[in-house]
Amino acid sequence: MPTPPVRRPRPGTPGRAPTILPDGHRADVYSAPCPSRAALDRIADKWTALLVGSLATGTKRFSELREEVGGISEKMLTQTLRSLERDGLVVRRVYPVVPPRVEYRLTTLGQTLDAPLAAVRDWAERYINEVEEARLRYDSDDSGD
Amino acid sequence: MPTPPVRRPRPGTPGRAPTILPDGHRADVYSAPCPSRAALDRIADKWTALLVGSLATGTKRFSELREEVGGISEKMLTQTLRSLERDGLVVRRVYPVVPPRVEYRLTTLGQTLDAPLAAVRDWAERYINEVEEARLRYDSDDSGD
Repeated sequence: MPTPPVRRPRPGTPGRAPTILPDGHRADVYSAPCPSRAALDRIADKWTALLVGSLATGTKRFSELREEVGGISEKMLTQTLRSLERDGLVVRRVYPVVPPRVEYRLTTLGQTLDAPLAAVRDWAERYINEVEEARLRYDSDDSGD
Repeated sequence: MPTPPVRRPRPGTPGRAPTILPDGHRADVYSAPCPSRAALDRIADKWTALLVGSLATGTKRFSELREEVGGISEKMLTQTLRSLERDGLVVRRVYPVVPPRVEYRLTTLGQTLDAPLAAVRDWAERYINEVEEARLRYDSDDSGD
């Protein structure tokens, strides 16, 4: 018997026309093989959320980003910036001076990601006390291990 | 010489009163030790984004969630649901029938996370073609390794 089609929840803007991929499929983050799932994995990431927010306030040098985003390692900053550049969200510009000066800025596409990620950062700050209280309740109620 | 204070980008709603933690600090996701950073790490996660979206459309059983969220393993679903429950975003209800029936639903707090995460899922679907084109350009331009 064939499996009935899964009714997937539709995120985002009601009435928005679906994005059609070059192969004719409709973009669907709920479908594991859809490329939009991999894109979601890249953007639903704390370092991406913090770096896009940092770059949204202006062009920054590597050292400035490292200073603004507390706790990010040099390796993670390099990796995340490279992914953002590859995904077309960030432009890296090298100035031929000694020592070389490297600056990063959001592309037009990257700017479209600022508002969604700002809302996620905002949520974390706004509701942190509620989350912490829930954790205390959960951990004290927990009669298991 | 003391380090000058870092001017951190402020996410979210302009004019919103900052959240003050019980220790008197202002919540700041850009500060690594702030508990809101750990909360950001939890919610900026593809499985959280997909599960909150799935639960936003109604109470679901484990098997329904597993069917809706393509590609999630049983282990990852269990782990993510437990984290969401601990953070006060999801309620798990067990019905004493044989076999036990277990249902999950968003709490009021969890519902507040639906719109931000829907915007992130929506972005991934909306801009996937632009992201894929940027990747092709990046990979073909790359004269390095």
